[in-house]
This record gives sequence, C-alpha cells and structure tokens, in this order.
Amino acid sequence: MKSATAFAPATVANVAVGFDILGFALESAGDIVTVTRSDQPSVFIREIINETGSDGVLDISREPAENTATVGLIKLREDLQLTFGFDVMLRKGIALGSGMGGSAASTVAALVAGNSLLDSPLSKKALFKYALIGEQAASGAVHPDNIAPCLFGGMILTLATEALRYVSLPFPQEILTVVVHPHLRVDTRKARTILKREVLLTDHVMQAANLGGFIAGCFRNDIELIKQSFHDHIIEPQRASLIPGFAHVKAAAIEQGAVGASVSGSGPSVFAWVTSPEAATQVRDAMLKAFRKHGSIEADSWISPINQQGAIIIK
Amino acid sequence: MKSATAFAPATVANVAVGFDILGFALESAGDIVTVTRSDQPSVFIREIINETGSDGVLDISREPAENTATVGLIKLREDLQLTFGFDVMLRKGIALGSGMGGSAASTVAALVAGNSLLDSPLSKKALFKYALIGEQAASGAVHPDNIAPCLFGGMILTLATEALRYVSLPFPQEILTVVVHPHLRVDTRKARTILKREVLLTDHVMQAANLGGFIAGCFRNDIELIKQSFHDHIIEPQRASLIPGFAHVKAAAIEQGAVGASVSGSGPSVFAWVTSPEAATQVRDAMLKAFRKHGSIEADSWISPINQQGAIIIK
Repeated sequence: MKSATAFAPATVANVAVGFDILGFALESAGDIVTVTRSDQPSVFIREIINETGSDGVLDISREPAENTATVGLIKLREDLQLTFGFDVMLRKGIALGSGMGGSAASTVAALVAGNSLLDSPLSKKALFKYALIGEQAASGAVHPDNIAPCLFGGMILTLATEALRYVSLPFPQEILTVVVHPHLRVDTRKARTILKREVLLTDHVMQAANLGGFIAGCFRNDIELIKQSFHDHIIEPQRASLIPGFAHVKAAAIEQGAVGASVSGSGPSVFAWVTSPEAATQVRDAMLKAFRKHGSIEADSWISPINQQGAIIIK
Repeated sequence: MKSATAFAPATVANVAVGFDILGFALESAGDIVTVTRSDQPSVFIREIINETGSDGVLDISREPAENTATVGLIKLREDLQLTFGFDVMLRKGIALGSGMGGSAASTVAALVAGNSLLDSPLSKKALFKYALIGEQAASGAVHPDNIAPCLFGGMILTLATEALRYVSLPFPQEILTVVVHPHLRVDTRKARTILKREVLLTDHVMQAANLGGFIAGCFRNDIELIKQSFHDHIIEPQRASLIPGFAHVKAAAIEQGAVGASVSGSGPSVFAWVTSPEAATQVRDAMLKAFRKHGSIEADSWISPINQQGAIIIK
C-alpha cells in the first residue's frame, strides 16, 4: 500500500510577548509520523516509538479517537468521505509536557503525511482546521500558536482561531533559538488553570507595548527594539513557579548576551534568542548550568535557527 | 524682541487597538502658539484666543504654573538656566475635552516655538520630555500617545514613558481620517476613572491579537488585515456610554465603507479611517447624521491625511 512519512517541527509558543497568539518553529527537533493507506475504512495506530529519552510518551493513548495524532485524520476522513483508511506509526521526538509543541507536531505530521496519500491532496491552509481539531483533543483547548508555525513554518501571529486567520511575521535572519528542556513535565491544562483570569489594565497596556515593539522590531530588523520589548509581565511571572530555578536560568541567558529569554509555551522548557552561534553555545551552557545548580535538574538542549518551511514530507 | 509661532496638530490617540500607546497626527486641526523672548526671567501668558467655536477654552488657567502650554516651558527654562523669559500667546484650535489631543497640542506648540528662540535649540527628541511634563499638568497623567505624534508627526507607538521610547509605524498612504467632534465635553480624568482596573485575560489576548494584526497590516500595507484587526474589545465598550449615539455613529461609518472607527482618545470625538476622498465625505456625512438622529447633537468634522511632520514653526 502507499505510505508517506512527514516531519513536523517543535515550536515555541507565546514568545514572551504574545500569549496564545505568537509562535515559531524550530529545525532541530520534531515528531515523525508514517501513514499508510489501508483497506480498512478507519484510522489505526500501529506503533508509537519513543525517541525523546523520557518516559512520558508511555501515557499517550493508543485509542485513535483520543490520540492527538489521529483525531485530525479521523475528521479529515469523515469530511472527505474517504473509502480507505490510515495506518499510523508515530515517532515522538518531542517529550510530552515539555512546552515544545509536542501534541501539535504529532497532529501536524500525521495530517501532512496522510494528506499526501489523498488522490487530491489539500493545501496546508486547508489542513490547518484539522490540525486544530487534533490539538484540541490533546489539550482541551485550541492552540493555534503552536499549530500554525508547526504547519507553515516561520514565526506566526494568529489572529482569531474561529476564522483560522494568521499572519507570518519576518524576523532578523541571524536569530538562533536556544531551547533547554529540564527533565520534568508540566501538564498543559494545569499550566493554564494556574493563570489568573484577569490582568491589570496597566499590565495589559505594558504588555501590548511590548508586543507592538517586538513586532515592529521584527519588521524593521531592529535587534535592540526586539530586546527592549522582550518581556512578559503577565504570564511568565505566574508560570515561573512551576519551573525550579527559572529565574536563574533566565538571568544566565541574559547575562550571556541573549536578546531575550522566557518560558517556551506552558513550560517547563525555557528558550532564548541569540544572534550568533558562539552566543548560542555560551547561552545554552549557562542555562544548563543554572538548571543544575538552582533547580537541581538535568536538561536537554537544542540550538536552532527558525524553521522556515514547517512540516514536510521526508519519505 | 525675537518671537516665533508654532503649529501643533490635533492627534487621535488609542486608535482602537493601542490604548495609551498608539496615536497619530492630523493635518487640518491644531493649536497655534506665539512665543516672544522677554527680559522678565519668567513665563507669562499674554493672551488665550478661542478659535474652536466652543466655550470650553474659557476654563483654561491663565496661571503659567497650571497651564499645559507653559508648564513645559517653565521646566525648560529651569533646566537650561535661561536668563530670559517667555511671553506666550495661545490660539486654541482644538476644543478642551474633545479627545483630539488639545492639551498635547498646546504644550507642544509652546515648546517648539520657545525652543526655536534659544541660542542653541534642542532637538525635537530632547523636547519630548518637557512636553510630557506639560501634558501631565493638564491631565494628571502622562499621555505620550498624544504627545509623541503631535511633536514628531506620523503614527507612533510609545513603548515606555519612563525611557521616552517610541517607534514610528508606517501606514498605507491612501488612508484618510474622518474626525467628528460632537458638541459636548468629556473630562479626560473622568473618562479614565470609569475604566475598570482589570481586564479579562481572554480580552487581553484578543486585543493583543488586534494590535499585532493592525501593526503587521501597517507594515505590509494590507488594508484588509488592518480592517479585520480594527476592534477595541476593552476600552471602547466602557467609554461608549459617555458619547450619546456612539454605536450608531460607528455603525454608520462602517456601513459607508470605513476601514474602522472608534473613539478618538478619551472622546467624545469619534474617528474613522477611509481609503478615498469620496469615502471620506460619505463617512463623515453619515456620522454627522447619526449624531444628529441618535445623539440629538451637532458636531464639527475634519477630513485629513495623517500628518507626517508634526509640530512646525510657521512664522
């Protein structure tokens, strides 16, 4: 039978200034899904392979209607009234609960692989809707800020989930991202429930100014403006308590010259932007050391440019 | 003695998506201030001329230490240890409490005129600080979102008042602004005290998406994106009640093809963006009619491109 394998990248959502609306994709981490067309008119999970080095993957449901990778495919089959089914093999490269968009990557990789097996494949834009459905199954809420960059690549501002509206933002080409993933797991739903339902108007204004400055800095290729704007007064202070040693890890990154650093998605991963490979290494080493010293925790790390192409067929 | 006359434009602050941080300048309305160097080592208000057609100007203090036009000049004299003084004549073209940045314009025009009389005039950037001091005297708070575009022109995002940081935003060149000023006065302090001190996190996210989309639309010259983003979910609903007929006036503007419409500053003026002179006339007429019908109130109106140069010496 025909089969296809897709890679979908890890993503950093929120990006300090855009809670729930901003995210970008990485190049060096992601999930890989192989989908095979089958005569069975259903979606079946054949195998889930854990390549993350953590044991969190064992929690993933093998039930297609509950698994983030397959829910979108099930809906796609229904909508297109396909007569054939999909047999899915999932290789998790992103740990669950890492804050690196793991469920988005599984969803997107499965959809991109499955879509390529259709007699008339849909556009990526048309797949966006199904990816949001899959992601919702995983987290109980729609997170286009992970899904959109995972699918399309680049850095994306999502404007309103209802209308699937989004806009790609430019960014300085020298930017490299350091992501450090401490070996603990933060439940996305829990990371959300701890957030206060209201924010001070003064904080809203300050944070809006940061978002505006950040976006203007990206359009103008102005690293200094991005740096001045790279602050989260609302979400980061509330989530920092879930990440042992966070304040020290962030301070270490800034001290080593990072443009900015914050929580990746709902954590516990922490990311930083830097402007050179040398700075990337120094920042990463300092962040790992700070996690060890102040959080008593080991961590994985990645250094990556922003991924420009998003999910792709690799076989 | 040497004298100089400066024009400082009316400004629209907030611009629907950027409460307290975004504003732009108009060409067709403003205050004019003539400053004369005097041997008296002080700042003196010679005359205040009301050219607004409303009687609100009568409330302006003649006491230099309390008048928005002169407070900045007083501080400038002190800081620069000037031996001479300033004699000030103020022609108010912007009604008080109109939401069109009248106090900012008085402050800025006086400073720009006075500055030009110095032996070594300061840059506009250096005057920004003194303009904020003058404006604070008027409203009890610093409003850089009026001051910055009044002084520098264009559309400006202010990033943090403390550091006097701001960034000029581009905008589509075909944009024209319609401003309609109903004959009633809204006290800036009152318009502020009615605002809730907290906003829902969900509203913060939605409003941040609007700001982001608006700024991206301005950089990309994308009128459709600007239109989709041109909504204020936080401030406008709270201030609409201070403006009789507001909902109808806004609806009339949108119905006639406006890109967007909202409260100008703290109101009661309402502004709309349009993309052609024909649309400007239609939108203005519809807004005036709606104020008459649903607010039982007459209004002045202006149609203006965005002012690119800000305050200038005119004599």
